[in-house]
Amino acid sequence: MTRSARYVGDRRIVVGDADPVPPGPGQVRIDVAYTGICGTDLHIMHGAMDRRVHTPAVIGHEMSGRIAALGAGVTDHAVGDPVTVMPLDWCGNCPACHAGHTHICHRLNFVGIDSAGSMQHSWTVPARILVPLPADLPLRRAALIEPTAVAVHDVRRSRLTAGERSVVIGAGPVGLLIAKVAQTTGATVTVVEIDPDRRAVAAELGIATVDPTDVDVAAHVAEQTGGAGADVVFEVSGSAAGVRTATDLLAVRGRLVVVGIHPAPREVDLHRVFWRELEMIGVRVYQREDYDEAVRLVHEERIPADRLISRVVPLEDAAEAFRALEAGGDVKVLIDCGDPGADA
Amino acid sequence: MTRSARYVGDRRIVVGDADPVPPGPGQVRIDVAYTGICGTDLHIMHGAMDRRVHTPAVIGHEMSGRIAALGAGVTDHAVGDPVTVMPLDWCGNCPACHAGHTHICHRLNFVGIDSAGSMQHSWTVPARILVPLPADLPLRRAALIEPTAVAVHDVRRSRLTAGERSVVIGAGPVGLLIAKVAQTTGATVTVVEIDPDRRAVAAELGIATVDPTDVDVAAHVAEQTGGAGADVVFEVSGSAAGVRTATDLLAVRGRLVVVGIHPAPREVDLHRVFWRELEMIGVRVYQREDYDEAVRLVHEERIPADRLISRVVPLEDAAEAFRALEAGGDVKVLIDCGDPGADA
Ligand SMILES: [Zn+2]
Ligand SMILES: [Zn+2]
Repeated sequence: MTRSARYVGDRRIVVGDADPVPPGPGQVRIDVAYTGICGTDLHIMHGAMDRRVHTPAVIGHEMSGRIAALGAGVTDHAVGDPVTVMPLDWCGNCPACHAGHTHICHRLNFVGIDSAGSMQHSWTVPARILVPLPADLPLRRAALIEPTAVAVHDVRRSRLTAGERSVVIGAGPVGLLIAKVAQTTGATVTVVEIDPDRRAVAAELGIATVDPTDVDVAAHVAEQTGGAGADVVFEVSGSAAGVRTATDLLAVRGRLVVVGIHPAPREVDLHRVFWRELEMIGVRVYQREDYDEAVRLVHEERIPADRLISRVVPLEDAAEAFRALEAGGDVKVLIDCGDPGADA
Repeated sequence: MTRSARYVGDRRIVVGDADPVPPGPGQVRIDVAYTGICGTDLHIMHGAMDRRVHTPAVIGHEMSGRIAALGAGVTDHAVGDPVTVMPLDWCGNCPACHAGHTHICHRLNFVGIDSAGSMQHSWTVPARILVPLPADLPLRRAALIEPTAVAVHDVRRSRLTAGERSVVIGAGPVGLLIAKVAQTTGATVTVVEIDPDRRAVAAELGIATVDPTDVDVAAHVAEQTGGAGADVVFEVSGSAAGVRTATDLLAVRGRLVVVGIHPAPREVDLHRVFWRELEMIGVRVYQREDYDEAVRLVHEERIPADRLISRVVPLEDAAEAFRALEAGGDVKVLIDCGDPGADA
């Protein structure tokens, strides 16, 4: 028997027993150590993705663990190896895959959304999605590699370089990670955030902050940049106001990276896009090179994982973990998926 | 005495006499041969730019002519040389100029809008904006170099390459020039245009056309591209519908080039921008390398200048030329600015 937390619809997460899935050919079974809860998981719990997620569903895709069993034909991994996964499984045969953009496969299986995720003790996945971890990287920190890879992808697509000026609109977990990754490029970073608690966390992490309810952000950035404006803005808030602010802030030839999910079309100042030759860049998940860089950044402690992980909750209390995250005040909440019996 | 056509406000263009301006240091006086009327000129005539244009104003910036007199210190040009101008005069000292984006100078003087233009026989300009022409290039065709440079800039910014699939939304003069320049890259091009006359011109120029009132353009493009979508869409219509169509059409990692001027913010499907990692690229005028390429393309007759020039009107009838363009049916209308006395 293994334990798992399942989304059963109706905003409910229920923990129960399940039979472990023996790894088939090309698969491995993982003893999951930690699973982070992300905005998408919360979104699923709220029922917003019920057309895509089939209940009861074990969700979760920000994880770390150790290989517990190998299926037939898996030769480049060993039992006991510490791993995370890049939770994308693509078809290899659609126009996007043919063009080399497998992470945007037209028939992408996002593992943990479209198929079973890691909020369980024992998890069986295709070996091809495994990402090996350094032996000395604590598994708790390793649960932040997936969201860090998102940030690495976003910063890479922005082409941000040393000496440039960047602004991050929205200081939730993704915004903070983007800010920390952006700092590693040698660019300056300012975070725009309404919530004082989130601003306090950013400040503690060494990131400059601005309160848009207090300061005219465009004027502030203009002043900071000798009238030029920002080279890159990451719009992470997903709000109409965030998009408006972003186009106002940008310098000539500035790049606006659309990170936040916008459920409705947004008004965009296309006259400004023309007038300053702005660029808007869509970003979705990550590619393998982003994962490799994320492993490196977390391993080298350039990502303040211990500060970002504000709460760790046992699997049995998964429902409470979701409620804590919903209530606000937390940055990143992890579920400890370890087998309590194994610790005894 | 010299003749000039002047915008005097109230939708009126008046032709009259003026004193020729002797070229000062670093300037040249040009005997203008032809001046094309563009959408911006029409816009000025309609009063839409009265805050920027000081009446009475000689407008016009798509021109060709010969140098008639040299001011002091002008050594790399000679009287009689055929020339056009790149009508941008930048400050050299703002953040955009410092960053090398002089064509988007924060204090740009667009010659023919912000200062006197070429709808006159005798025109005095700084020698630094001159672009020499090949001796065997007919001056009539050379009047198309400026709008061709716009198209070259837009195609260059799109990074369109051989084998890619592009769509141009809107087949006015700029859309047609973009389509012809796009063809020179080896990409396929389809023009989307509601107006049957404009579609007919495009077809005559060897460009595939689609009528969006007749065909589901997204489905059509999907079918033509094996389900992938377009690699590049040039939105030249300036309409809300054009923007909507553009995001619908694009393949994964597709590029949307915002060519049309959008007076109001437009709703953009940012979810699609995220989902397909789309890119939006603002474009404004041109840089010198675009001019050099435009001269080459017009000279080599890869731009069907004679077909695009649908009417040539003497300077005395400038007001009629504007009315003809307003009425529709024309592609490009030129004003013959040559001195009638000189021909005698
Ligand atoms: Zn695929
Ligand atoms: Zn300047």
